[in-house]
Amino acid sequence: MTGRALPLEGVTVVDLGQIYNGPYATFLMAQAGARVIKIEPLNGENMRRRGAVGGAMVPFAMLNSNKEFVSLNIKSAKGKRILEQLVEKADVLLENFAPGVMDRLGLGPDDLFKINPRLIYAAGSGFGWSGPYRDYPAMDLTVQAMSGIMSTTGYPDRPPVKAGPAVADFSGGVHLYGAVVTALFERERTGEGRFVEVAMFDAVYAANSSALGLYFGSGGEAPMRTGNRHSGMAEAPYNVYPAADGYIALICVSEQHFTSLLEAMDRTDLASDPRLETLKSRVANIDFVDEVVSGWTAKRTRDDLYEKLRKHRVPCAPLRDLGEVVHDPHMHARGMLQKVEHPLLGELVLPTSPMRYRDEPERKLKPSKALGADTAEVLADLIGFDALEVEELRKEGVV
Amino acid sequence: MTGRALPLEGVTVVDLGQIYNGPYATFLMAQAGARVIKIEPLNGENMRRRGAVGGAMVPFAMLNSNKEFVSLNIKSAKGKRILEQLVEKADVLLENFAPGVMDRLGLGPDDLFKINPRLIYAAGSGFGWSGPYRDYPAMDLTVQAMSGIMSTTGYPDRPPVKAGPAVADFSGGVHLYGAVVTALFERERTGEGRFVEVAMFDAVYAANSSALGLYFGSGGEAPMRTGNRHSGMAEAPYNVYPAADGYIALICVSEQHFTSLLEAMDRTDLASDPRLETLKSRVANIDFVDEVVSGWTAKRTRDDLYEKLRKHRVPCAPLRDLGEVVHDPHMHARGMLQKVEHPLLGELVLPTSPMRYRDEPERKLKPSKALGADTAEVLADLIGFDALEVEELRKEGVV
Repeated sequence: MTGRALPLEGVTVVDLGQIYNGPYATFLMAQAGARVIKIEPLNGENMRRRGAVGGAMVPFAMLNSNKEFVSLNIKSAKGKRILEQLVEKADVLLENFAPGVMDRLGLGPDDLFKINPRLIYAAGSGFGWSGPYRDYPAMDLTVQAMSGIMSTTGYPDRPPVKAGPAVADFSGGVHLYGAVVTALFERERTGEGRFVEVAMFDAVYAANSSALGLYFGSGGEAPMRTGNRHSGMAEAPYNVYPAADGYIALICVSEQHFTSLLEAMDRTDLASDPRLETLKSRVANIDFVDEVVSGWTAKRTRDDLYEKLRKHRVPCAPLRDLGEVVHDPHMHARGMLQKVEHPLLGELVLPTSPMRYRDEPERKLKPSKALGADTAEVLADLIGFDALEVEELRKEGVV
Repeated sequence: MTGRALPLEGVTVVDLGQIYNGPYATFLMAQAGARVIKIEPLNGENMRRRGAVGGAMVPFAMLNSNKEFVSLNIKSAKGKRILEQLVEKADVLLENFAPGVMDRLGLGPDDLFKINPRLIYAAGSGFGWSGPYRDYPAMDLTVQAMSGIMSTTGYPDRPPVKAGPAVADFSGGVHLYGAVVTALFERERTGEGRFVEVAMFDAVYAANSSALGLYFGSGGEAPMRTGNRHSGMAEAPYNVYPAADGYIALICVSEQHFTSLLEAMDRTDLASDPRLETLKSRVANIDFVDEVVSGWTAKRTRDDLYEKLRKHRVPCAPLRDLGEVVHDPHMHARGMLQKVEHPLLGELVLPTSPMRYRDEPERKLKPSKALGADTAEVLADLIGFDALEVEELRKEGVV
């Protein structure tokens, strides 16, 4: 039952993305079958340049599989013209420069719609193309600070702390993917292109729903960080508990879960303790609840706890480090993670797309390549340049 | 230049989503113009039931604007038949029950494709519909534990801690949105429906890129939590620094940024200090760097620092609490956040979609309604039931 084409086959994307935000959006497009032409400046995209520092090239490899690699100086007159010629043939142009950069180059949405009115012009940025913060500097850390993410992350007795993953960059990137594909769908019906944009700042707002509930519910008193306890302080047990060899996350969101937990602990005698009888009484006695659970978990290993609690259908999970995650048998079995021999970096584990389509062809990662590796082929294929012309452009510093 | 239709107008979604993951995906669809029919069991969706506890109804309101509200017992024979009749008319069915639940009800993808071969059947889950963890319990906290997010979040001298926002739920939700719209695009070209699915576990993997870079770069030694310092410990200054009235996040990713910071601090004399001269020396003397910067920031307010550093083009941002975020003038100016008078909850600030389309109609939030508020209208409109028939179904406990 495999062998249907990938859903975005036939779609061509001109990708000016850099760092995480833009490249993740176009990575998802490439994984869904689009032809993604990654355009880099002659000294390479920002993340490629960081490759000098140990390991810094890995994120570039993670986000740029299955793309084609073109070097192009879009600040030169000839380079700009080439970009326009690529846009003529493309369905999507995506960039995540600061707002205004492309307009100043004469390559903004209005310029490019004149060349291709069916184009989807997609812009990712920190704060968006409108509003008072439009030109404020934005990176993952600053967006995490501004958006309230840090204020809800960490232990209440310590300063606020960032979420370890670059959640602003990546949330912005996948929302931008969604906006592009939505506009592609619309274009099938209307024939018209669109300018679409996503701000990282907007993209992370909803994820604070639990804490926002508490904020409004408490009449405007901003919620504190709760460590690993429930953001709304409305569930107990709900925490990360010590195990003999690490930690285990454990949650009871229904009375049944709590009853099952007591059964797993062999402590059904506690069911009638007034501090534990109802969700309300447990939340009121949260320290006691955590003490009871910790006392049990601390004597057992993560794996023993996970197995036992799963049998009793109590939501839980071992806390794992990245080494365990990279070699996770589940993600490898599903093809989400794949071992590849990277031409520049050697053996590596790289991700595919989280979006899965039944009957899709087998997932094959094509590792990222050297800067400009596909320049000649792409310019020949889409614009009709011959090898000599490309060589000339190379000498002139255009490609 | 406004007045173009929203891109998903004409698309009908049957929404069985619950809690955050599914409802966020269909919220984005409703915001993009789709007709979203939210089906809830007769005692209400999980998040609605939690409404008893103060503020817990707010997340429900945040994620269910612009939907229609139908109550339906899909476990009854008549309820199941009604769901099938809705699916006949729908473009998308979305659910985030545990894998297998819909199959056991006779409402799985294979059952529903028989009724409507053009259907997009979308499933959100913790670990996906295949692989060894398929049936493991999954919630935001447990996915954060399993996926390595906690291992990279927090201070190195304290236990790992969750990201405050429900990043697994929401990342899963927006990826699922992307997969659905991708399949809708494909259907315009092929006429065929698709089963699409997204696991929260897969959806958060790539966001750990920086730490994964360090993991591979260090030859497999799993990286530690770095507090607010750079995940790769490859930048300095890069941290959240104390201000007189809070904290400010500040980053120098180029030598120019650091030079500008010294100018803003009026301490260009420090430029020749060997501990500060190069990125390499600053990273080697990171405690000293942070001490120098903290000494300056601690005497000034967040706003003064933000203004001064922006003038000098040093990437930075004040660390804000949720109260500041909810009333943020930028997000209100862009229409991302809107004040609404909610029929059940009173005055509230609710989000719209981070995905923005040029020339889209003015954003108008329609607040969520009571359980089953639209049951009669929807069943009349899509199946042709009259008021008497709906009344009968109500008495029988079907709707």
